[in-house]
Amino acid sequence: MEIQDVILIGTGRLSQFYARHLPGLGLPIHQVYGRDPVKAGYVASLCGADAVTQWQSLRKGASLYLVLVSDQSIPEVAGNLMLRDELLVHAAGSLPADIFSGLTDHYGVCWPLQTFSEGHYPDPADIPFIIEASNPLAERKLKAFASCLSPMVQTASFQERQIMHLAAVFVSNFSNHLYAMAEELLATHRLPAHLLAPIIRHTAARVGSQPARQMQTGPAVRFDHAVLESQLSLLSSHPEWAEVYRLLTQSIQDFANHPEPHEEL
Amino acid sequence: MEIQDVILIGTGRLSQFYARHLPGLGLPIHQVYGRDPVKAGYVASLCGADAVTQWQSLRKGASLYLVLVSDQSIPEVAGNLMLRDELLVHAAGSLPADIFSGLTDHYGVCWPLQTFSEGHYPDPADIPFIIEASNPLAERKLKAFASCLSPMVQTASFQERQIMHLAAVFVSNFSNHLYAMAEELLATHRLPAHLLAPIIRHTAARVGSQPARQMQTGPAVRFDHAVLESQLSLLSSHPEWAEVYRLLTQSIQDFANHPEPHEEL
Repeated sequence: MEIQDVILIGTGRLSQFYARHLPGLGLPIHQVYGRDPVKAGYVASLCGADAVTQWQSLRKGASLYLVLVSDQSIPEVAGNLMLRDELLVHAAGSLPADIFSGLTDHYGVCWPLQTFSEGHYPDPADIPFIIEASNPLAERKLKAFASCLSPMVQTASFQERQIMHLAAVFVSNFSNHLYAMAEELLATHRLPAHLLAPIIRHTAARVGSQPARQMQTGPAVRFDHAVLESQLSLLSSHPEWAEVYRLLTQSIQDFANHPEPHEEL
Repeated sequence: MEIQDVILIGTGRLSQFYARHLPGLGLPIHQVYGRDPVKAGYVASLCGADAVTQWQSLRKGASLYLVLVSDQSIPEVAGNLMLRDELLVHAAGSLPADIFSGLTDHYGVCWPLQTFSEGHYPDPADIPFIIEASNPLAERKLKAFASCLSPMVQTASFQERQIMHLAAVFVSNFSNHLYAMAEELLATHRLPAHLLAPIIRHTAARVGSQPARQMQTGPAVRFDHAVLESQLSLLSSHPEWAEVYRLLTQSIQDFANHPEPHEEL
């Protein structure tokens, strides 16, 4: 009933993450599939698996096939997989589970609500795994699998997962871009960027203790027009950045003017 | 030569922060000035100081007067202070030091590059103190004072401080607002917001290890138009949010198309 062995399809950051962690959790990986033999060999070497570059070499009968390729490549994978009744799972936040519905009765999604950048792999226990499955048996198996990695396992429908994915883009991709803009702002004035790390970490660390809207500080929420005007003038030679500044300032002030959360988005 | 004793002017979050920490570092606080006797009494009680509500009661001859009021109130403070040659310092990121130039020869700024929200006081050692002083003696004193609190003490001109303040707005106030938007997005769909805390912390924790632009992930930097369109459509009933999404996506893609930092902002 439980997951006994795993096959990884794809050689990117998420595949490398699983290759590093699953064997130590008692979940052996038999094969790593990748078009590029060097990459497949590298990931396979991380977990003592065989590297496979041909679809027909893919072993049948493993408990779990994890499809860890880009969204665009998933249809190609689906077109080449020949499964009987095995559990087939992808990891895309924004794709439905049923893109696998013609291939097997047991399919699903196991989407990690984390960011995986090169060289910065989060601890598995610090990853919420958001899962969806085609039937109760598949769901039970997938839940057991994800629970080996993390205490945070949550089932969600496709619609719910899409909202979570959108929220993750706001808090991770967009925040990271604000960090990148700030680093560039400091660099162009030959100022040290490392001085920003403490305020970035502190702002992130307090999340969850209170609603973020109640912890807002700074010139926008104080409606401090003198500082807002002076900061905008510092961005005058960079109109796209000034537009980001104006729009987020406006949005902070909208929240301040409507202290109750919106009932409906 | 060193700071022997301190007087706090103002009763807000920063004043409370100093009241909690300075006495333990061997820096006694004699008086806390505030218009509101209850607030002044509260802050004074944190540090064993006397609460003062009348300007004429303010003691002369202390080593350091820390003006910790809102930017708007600083001129009022300046108009009421009667000093001889004492060191007078404000904590505003966006105001020049020389607003005190008529009052004493020894003045300056000690601006903490951190965010202080109610109930979330950072550890002093995790605060970069950005200082500026009117003369070398004042600078030496201010540096010695800030070094009691934190290993991160940096002198900066007013122009440099303004850029740092602007960068701090991007990474702290704006990021926090993205967290607030995401929390509201999840709440309106009855989804648990606590699942975002790990990705928020991980995204913040990796800052400084590499330039943030090199750690970007997600649909914008992948130019994944299918996901971008689908996420925008989830925001269709909330055009201001969609505008934030569009603008930050565009800006991430501009960075991706210009991998070298701009020479000049």
